[in-house]
Amino acid sequence: MASLSEANEALNAINLDFTGEFVNVKNALNRELIDDIFSTKDLPCFDNSALDGYALKFEYKQSGYVLKDTILAGDKRNLEIKDNECIRIMTGAKFPSGADTILRLEDSYEKDGLIYAKSLKKGEAHRLRGEEVKSGEILIKNGTKLTPAHLMLLASQGINEVFVKTLPKIAIFSSGNELREPWQRADDDEIYNANAHGISALLLQNGFKSSYLGTIKDSFEATKNALKSAMNFDVIICSGGASKGDADYMKDALLSLGFTEIFSHVNIRPGAPSKAFKNGNKIAFVLAGNPMAAFLMAFLLIVPFLTKTKHELTKATLKNSLKLKSGRINVVLGEFKNGVFNVLNDNKYGSGMITPLVNSNAIYLSKSDESEILEGSEIFILRLS
Amino acid sequence: MASLSEANEALNAINLDFTGEFVNVKNALNRELIDDIFSTKDLPCFDNSALDGYALKFEYKQSGYVLKDTILAGDKRNLEIKDNECIRIMTGAKFPSGADTILRLEDSYEKDGLIYAKSLKKGEAHRLRGEEVKSGEILIKNGTKLTPAHLMLLASQGINEVFVKTLPKIAIFSSGNELREPWQRADDDEIYNANAHGISALLLQNGFKSSYLGTIKDSFEATKNALKSAMNFDVIICSGGASKGDADYMKDALLSLGFTEIFSHVNIRPGAPSKAFKNGNKIAFVLAGNPMAAFLMAFLLIVPFLTKTKHELTKATLKNSLKLKSGRINVVLGEFKNGVFNVLNDNKYGSGMITPLVNSNAIYLSKSDESEILEGSEIFILRLS
Repeated sequence: MASLSEANEALNAINLDFTGEFVNVKNALNRELIDDIFSTKDLPCFDNSALDGYALKFEYKQSGYVLKDTILAGDKRNLEIKDNECIRIMTGAKFPSGADTILRLEDSYEKDGLIYAKSLKKGEAHRLRGEEVKSGEILIKNGTKLTPAHLMLLASQGINEVFVKTLPKIAIFSSGNELREPWQRADDDEIYNANAHGISALLLQNGFKSSYLGTIKDSFEATKNALKSAMNFDVIICSGGASKGDADYMKDALLSLGFTEIFSHVNIRPGAPSKAFKNGNKIAFVLAGNPMAAFLMAFLLIVPFLTKTKHELTKATLKNSLKLKSGRINVVLGEFKNGVFNVLNDNKYGSGMITPLVNSNAIYLSKSDESEILEGSEIFILRLS
Repeated sequence: MASLSEANEALNAINLDFTGEFVNVKNALNRELIDDIFSTKDLPCFDNSALDGYALKFEYKQSGYVLKDTILAGDKRNLEIKDNECIRIMTGAKFPSGADTILRLEDSYEKDGLIYAKSLKKGEAHRLRGEEVKSGEILIKNGTKLTPAHLMLLASQGINEVFVKTLPKIAIFSSGNELREPWQRADDDEIYNANAHGISALLLQNGFKSSYLGTIKDSFEATKNALKSAMNFDVIICSGGASKGDADYMKDALLSLGFTEIFSHVNIRPGAPSKAFKNGNKIAFVLAGNPMAAFLMAFLLIVPFLTKTKHELTKATLKNSLKLKSGRINVVLGEFKNGVFNVLNDNKYGSGMITPLVNSNAIYLSKSDESEILEGSEIFILRLS
């Protein structure tokens, strides 16, 4: 029986065999860069003004300046000033050669046809070519997950395609004779498949698309054939068929296909019978069949594996005292609001239910030796949404 | 000059004129529901067992039970037991009529061909039809933003299409003669358009696609014609052309198209000259032209407007003392890690830069009367990524 952190570590040690692909920056949000990206252009790419004002030589401020010209952003002319000259300049416009300082519009006044400074600071508003980025430097490092700010920086360099890791190909199965799909019609004796669609939405929320490959019927042959058909996927996720019931063929089918077990149980409730298997660079998860357990174990095992990021811990105050069965990690559902974690329904609900997940936005994971946590305690929670 | 919260409130008061559309639940993540959704199916839809065990009548536990049959999940038979009979039952299988309790497999033993209980609790593991959801109840309320758990619940009800608000149609423009697109070639005198692509990525990260309609040249006619061509969009975002320079035609063009100003400045740095305009149910933002200012004002004004959600405040400890110019809100960039906010580069960088955004994951918004915050102070920050 693995602890949750042992299970996470064992999964972390597996490197899916991703290749690289060029994608347009439009589609590169949250993708992982392969290779360093080098800058190709100085930023700024020419000396320019940070303000609207007058470009001039600081040392002649006593004697005033003759206005010679005006330059706007986008004007490509290379202007030049002499000692007592100035040029009216707009933010972002090219800095005239000979000038060293910008006199702010609001700090200037005119007298006898000359421009004077009420106050002036040497070097003010002179943006130097390359002061932010120099051409040829490493701009973004290999392995970086690209944020909107990275994409803006890439645009500023005229970089429109980036080489990133391919995304894992993820297959989702359900198992169980009783299941009907939401787009089919179930009679009163039949259950709609919720797990596969809940897990798929959860992965999508974390940036990962998946393919739903249908329900596997309860037989060894059907299970083996279904799994065999998914061998072109990097990650296979099954839910149902994980408990020690009469209808459990998942493990045998995976072993017969050359998979080996990474862990067979996790010391957690709900979701204990969740298992993972690997075969070379492929991985298969067999999650507990109860909807709540399947969803939570996808959140706790699969999301960190795919994103390569541990769930962030948020400090919270426990609203009401909480009793727990020790000897395992308990997943406690609740609502986190204004720094307070309010345990859902006194922690009483069935693990086959879905509505408690809907009514929660966070979970607390107990330590396995905790049997009671007092009202007002400071705890660390994980945000679900 | 509006304060940031006044600007946010003024924007909040505007209701874009969205209609509804049916979308498949696969595409409904984070979409806003129109109308309540009612449940159509009891959950569970039949009495069933929460465990693997034996279904039996509690009161005959002393005299043992004759095993009559086995029922698996998915088996539609309606079985029945008499007083001293039991049926082996798997998790999720139909509860036999006459039974009231499940004896856990691990609490059972066999003697002389009969099944006995080592321990037994009346009503154990008997899941009742409709105990989670009753058909005809409100399942999810009008206005709800659909999470993965909601989509799982909808699947469990066989609901595959939902009626949600249409997403706003968003147009993005840049302005400035000097701009080249990242997919074009700029010479050393030319600047790549970064703002539009950074804002677009920021909106995408928050769930909103946008259309980039290109760069507007610096003339009143070009500006008016470009804006006119975008009148079929709900939200128009321009960056550049917001400062009081010689090349500012945006405001005049919007007014000539029937827009009225919501606010003309925000008391914040960077980004003060950011403006918003409305025309019926349309809204236009004219953001400051500096990349950092444009990005931050899109984050502070447009994202909360589109998501109808205030940015969440996270408690943090300020690592080093911070001096500020009071009289305005200062946006302070920094890195938030393990509860500590570390101000970027002692808060010294140009507002025309992009790399400080890349190197930050959070911002602190000062109060307008703050001129110094001491090391170790408790502050509230906003997370950028």
